[in-house]
Amino acid sequence: MNKIVHEIIVRYAETDQMGIVHHSVYPVYFEAARVELMKKMALPYDELEKKGLFLPVIELAANYIKPARFGDSVEVEAVMLPPVGVRVRIEYTIYCRGEAIVKGLTVHAFTAANNRPCRPPDYFLNALQK
Amino acid sequence: MNKIVHEIIVRYAETDQMGIVHHSVYPVYFEAARVELMKKMALPYDELEKKGLFLPVIELAANYIKPARFGDSVEVEAVMLPPVGVRVRIEYTIYCRGEAIVKGLTVHAFTAANNRPCRPPDYFLNALQK
Amino acid sequence: MNKIVHEIIVRYAETDQMGIVHHSVYPVYFEAARVELMKKMALPYDELEKKGLFLPVIELAANYIKPARFGDSVEVEAVMLPPVGVRVRIEYTIYCRGEAIVKGLTVHAFTAANNRPCRPPDYFLNALQK
Amino acid sequence: MNKIVHEIIVRYAETDQMGIVHHSVYPVYFEAARVELMKKMALPYDELEKKGLFLPVIELAANYIKPARFGDSVEVEAVMLPPVGVRVRIEYTIYCRGEAIVKGLTVHAFTAANNRPCRPPDYFLNALQK
Repeated sequence: MNKIVHEIIVRYAETDQMGIVHHSVYPVYFEAARVELMKKMALPYDELEKKGLFLPVIELAANYIKPARFGDSVEVEAVMLPPVGVRVRIEYTIYCRGEAIVKGLTVHAFTAANNRPCRPPDYFLNALQK
Repeated sequence: MNKIVHEIIVRYAETDQMGIVHHSVYPVYFEAARVELMKKMALPYDELEKKGLFLPVIELAANYIKPARFGDSVEVEAVMLPPVGVRVRIEYTIYCRGEAIVKGLTVHAFTAANNRPCRPPDYFLNALQK
Repeated sequence: MNKIVHEIIVRYAETDQMGIVHHSVYPVYFEAARVELMKKMALPYDELEKKGLFLPVIELAANYIKPARFGDSVEVEAVMLPPVGVRVRIEYTIYCRGEAIVKGLTVHAFTAANNRPCRPPDYFLNALQK
Repeated sequence: MNKIVHEIIVRYAETDQMGIVHHSVYPVYFEAARVELMKKMALPYDELEKKGLFLPVIELAANYIKPARFGDSVEVEAVMLPPVGVRVRIEYTIYCRGEAIVKGLTVHAFTAANNRPCRPPDYFLNALQK
């Protein structure tokens, strides 16, 4: 289990004066899909934080192919790759009317409550392999 | 000392497809002015929180008279009224090219770290009277 | 037809360092519910704009009773009142776990493409009465 | 003239429940610095749009080294590279207390009002070489 497709309806507030979704909004869409993915993996993000595991974003990249517009229904596909060391990478493709409009990725650092990098816990790795 | 005028340059990301600043942005401008006001009152908000005093917004109101646009320089006037009981009210007027374009207010509850309402501390009242 | 209940899952990006949804986010939730309401009324907002009818917010008010937190599922109830003159008022109650946590309202001005106030079109009034 | 350093004070609304600036905010800081850079280059972005020249972001990347926090004053350095074909790249470094905390880049497509890619106009290239 390492993949999800999450639907989002574009909000008016997310548009800019070019009449399209502002580019800073897509990282928030990535995050919403990532949160749903982790819920589906039985690793809900709010419980991880309560257990003292944080996953701050240390790298972000996005390619904007076509714009989404107000009212569009977009599908955010998120795929989590196997963690490497203290890091995990998630890749995203956003579709609108069947077409890929944005591609991106985030890299996260497994971080303990003391703010130091840590190995991914076993329950995390197990959830990914299920 | 209970008043400030704080200048803000409208960001592109703050516009919407109507070509104007989205109405949900002005409460953020109110907040930016409020933070500067409290800094000027020698009550910097981050230090209040470290001391265990929080000021969550419990009421918000805004009247939108004219729109601001990308690149506009707006002046946010914020005036803190004397606290009443466990609450304090701040009133705002946003000016653009000398004209009032938005008027608003926020009401805040003095809240202790245990999440309960509390009386405004003496240092807060003294700062307001200076 | 003048009422809807719209579900929203709180995003991580919508929280602030108090660990709760930032107060400026609720007007965006109001808007999302309003957009769904108008879709249900067969008055989709994007088509109204294409027809040259705009509904800028001219007044906003909100009372914050309890905070919502990351991951919460909130239900935004929106009720459109009968237009009065060139204005229409929508009232909102946000529920979380069955409890009302935010109440608010927006007032909108019917505005033509020339940026002047106008009477609500008949198709708008008819949709509201259906 | 192809470089600027632009100061930004972190807003409360820009923090998240980790107590740090949410990662989706930095692209907005990049944009604010880019806008100031273009103003300084005598290419104010709002006037470019009025002339029918748009510069949508087609690529974004960011590396998050250290977090910024509420109230921090950050300095956003933006450097515009010479356009290549129909694209221009801008690189950013955000400093907080003298330390680089975020590095990033955006790539923009010169786009005409008809929504098609176009060569950068001479006045743009001249401004960059001055």
